[in-house]
Amino acid sequence: MAAVTAFAPATVSNVACGFDVLGFPLDEPGDEVSARVTPRGVTIDDILNDGGRLPREAARNTASIAVQSLLTRIGETRGVALTIRKGLPLSSGLGGSAASAVAAVVAVDALFDAKLSRELLLECAFEGERFGAGSAHADNIAPCLYGGFVLVRRAMPPDIVQLPVPSGLSAVVVHPELEIETARARAILGDTVSLADATRQWANLGALVDALHRSDFDLLSRSLEDVIAEPRRASLVPGLADIKRAAADAGALGCSLSGSGPSLFALCRDLGVATRVADAMTAAVVRHIGGKPQTYVSLISMRGARIVSADPKGPALQV
Amino acid sequence: MAAVTAFAPATVSNVACGFDVLGFPLDEPGDEVSARVTPRGVTIDDILNDGGRLPREAARNTASIAVQSLLTRIGETRGVALTIRKGLPLSSGLGGSAASAVAAVVAVDALFDAKLSRELLLECAFEGERFGAGSAHADNIAPCLYGGFVLVRRAMPPDIVQLPVPSGLSAVVVHPELEIETARARAILGDTVSLADATRQWANLGALVDALHRSDFDLLSRSLEDVIAEPRRASLVPGLADIKRAAADAGALGCSLSGSGPSLFALCRDLGVATRVADAMTAAVVRHIGGKPQTYVSLISMRGARIVSADPKGPALQV
Repeated sequence: MAAVTAFAPATVSNVACGFDVLGFPLDEPGDEVSARVTPRGVTIDDILNDGGRLPREAARNTASIAVQSLLTRIGETRGVALTIRKGLPLSSGLGGSAASAVAAVVAVDALFDAKLSRELLLECAFEGERFGAGSAHADNIAPCLYGGFVLVRRAMPPDIVQLPVPSGLSAVVVHPELEIETARARAILGDTVSLADATRQWANLGALVDALHRSDFDLLSRSLEDVIAEPRRASLVPGLADIKRAAADAGALGCSLSGSGPSLFALCRDLGVATRVADAMTAAVVRHIGGKPQTYVSLISMRGARIVSADPKGPALQV
Repeated sequence: MAAVTAFAPATVSNVACGFDVLGFPLDEPGDEVSARVTPRGVTIDDILNDGGRLPREAARNTASIAVQSLLTRIGETRGVALTIRKGLPLSSGLGGSAASAVAAVVAVDALFDAKLSRELLLECAFEGERFGAGSAHADNIAPCLYGGFVLVRRAMPPDIVQLPVPSGLSAVVVHPELEIETARARAILGDTVSLADATRQWANLGALVDALHRSDFDLLSRSLEDVIAEPRRASLVPGLADIKRAAADAGALGCSLSGSGPSLFALCRDLGVATRVADAMTAAVVRHIGGKPQTYVSLISMRGARIVSADPKGPALQV
């Protein structure tokens, strides 16, 4: 195969009470990575739609680091050149570095017909994500790769739990015109939490998992509470309390930061409610932050990363 | 009704990864409380099997405080006299104060035919437990009252989640001849935990809830890990690591402290395994601590507290 292109979706991580361990993908947007065989080494042909801001140097790019890990693992001596088409806004809290890393390893796995298990692909993507996100968590790459609502019991070696998704469960994501660096959003958390807050958080996470199993939307709604990260990061998103209230008033089950923000997500019991919640949240974001927010409405996607084209003759992406 | 007697079972709380929020009852042992109507006030007729150590003064006893809360709530002007028969060893980590409080409110609810909801009974028992345990958690009283594997999303007002119990799931409890004061075991924890440990704990709790829903014993086993309380309390139980190893070698899914200890519990996939695990744990406890440990083997009990006799003529307990 001379060239393979893979798509990997945006992901909402943390999901209120699941800091660093819970996530789900949207149908779109996502990143596409095209990979072609080269004689040696991992290089980056191009990165599209990033405004020139992501590192082109293979040793510093999430996707190429993940691919290097895969090549080493399968003992492949040939090389790979990547073209990365960013569909995700940068530093948005929607798992952009995860999407690029996951799309890259899925493409390269197919390129060399390596047929690695999902766990091994996850380990490779994790190497990239660890570099890109500056810390070792897998709550973006796991749902990005597996699809569905995913719990990361342990990132490495991976112990991934695919949770059930109640029929109709939908997500709204609003990305304000605002950037938050993941590293800064993480530093703001500090290293310790009160035992009382931690206890409340794991009670909520346990209840959320039960609610997904029972399709209990009321319990799901009560459990979508973040007493760990959101209070510390609230100052990074002007008007957060008001945006959350707008989502709740429009019928959302819950609303919080997506990952480290600034994107906000809401969960809703069906797509109809989600559409109304999207309008209400977008209006509130414009009121408080201004600019042109990007808004996405989607069922919780059951599809993770996937091959979108495999061209025996050359690169599938038109640069 | 002149006298009513209720039974309330021993409970294992925390259950490794569910500090302060998770618990389940055993079939036995348990406490029995007999209640009779008096003209006024709450008094204690007698307490049996406590070696004279529990407070007879109604204002300082868990059970009578819980009953006073119930009488106030229903506007009952008559009084109650209680006889408490302790089946649970004191300061054992098996929810002794919870069992007395729960049995007392269940008995008095029947005595006055009050028919309070379980949530309201829980609130009354919570008043007693708060006094007895020196802190506000409900992971003993909720499973003691409801039966089954219980998650306390919130203690007050109560938000109680009854989790499914996989067929065959059995518990071993070994109570070493050793006492740990709950207050001391709690002080040893401190007020803060590392964010990394807290994250690992809620990942495990989420996985445990999923495992119960799927009857996935392997995942259940991996999630029975306590990185919060057990490491800090390990020094209170000599030989803990070796006792845990003995349980694992005999086939236990997991083993940790019951509540704040010194009792130890193990979960097992069936009663046959549980019997072997009980032998192995008991032998290890004797080796490290000596004395005569008490050992219990039981399915996870689906029955919570219950009326055992209602005598229209007088007290059911023979003092």
